[in-house]
Amino acid sequence: MNDLFDTLKFDAHGLIPAVIADHQTHQVLMMAWMNRDALSKTLSTGHTHFFSRSRNKLWMKGEESGHTQAVKSIRTDCDGDVLLIDVDQTGVACHEGYRSCFFRRLDGIRWVVADEREVDPKTVYARKS
Amino acid sequence: MNDLFDTLKFDAHGLIPAVIADHQTHQVLMMAWMNRDALSKTLSTGHTHFFSRSRNKLWMKGEESGHTQAVKSIRTDCDGDVLLIDVDQTGVACHEGYRSCFFRRLDGIRWVVADEREVDPKTVYARKS
Repeated sequence: MNDLFDTLKFDAHGLIPAVIADHQTHQVLMMAWMNRDALSKTLSTGHTHFFSRSRNKLWMKGEESGHTQAVKSIRTDCDGDVLLIDVDQTGVACHEGYRSCFFRRLDGIRWVVADEREVDPKTVYARKS
Repeated sequence: MNDLFDTLKFDAHGLIPAVIADHQTHQVLMMAWMNRDALSKTLSTGHTHFFSRSRNKLWMKGEESGHTQAVKSIRTDCDGDVLLIDVDQTGVACHEGYRSCFFRRLDGIRWVVADEREVDPKTVYARKS
């Protein structure tokens, strides 16, 4: 049977990058990696799950902070080697308290913080989901 | 001297993923990989350059098609291991003739084409920049 995974190309480590964007504004919130289990879990629960390369484990976005992401749509690109997932973000995507992880912008040769911090980073990890 | 590259984490192959978005609508157009040379060239020319893992060479987006990307801003994420580049896209980003490479959306368990094709893919490669 043809399977949605057949269209996708996972890399040598069994991973595919997932770009996460706000479903209303299209703002890119973060990028993380999924393996097959993470994508399966994302599909079955409706909330984003990723594979942590540093901790070598599956995690649900917001499992500690409560800042979960409800999936609105999943797209893939022409090569089938990247996912683009539109979400309804609860709270903020970045553990540093910014709406998006991409809060630093290149200004000449320096990276400057370009966004307003929305929540105290301490609270992002203080709340258990 | 502190250098903008110091903030960035290139992977074991010397690469960093670059998410490319439309600077006005924020629509994600594509994702590709940069090495240091590709980023340097992007900065010095103002047009996106990438490193092709399959062809093992630097290329300028649109060098064959004319569908170039003028850089409007460059961001990085909290970990410094992904770039988000807002561009002014000439023509279409996808070699298959769609505005964005992410033209397929998951519908149940099937990937369906969700966008309108804007140009004939034959013309994307026919025109030399």
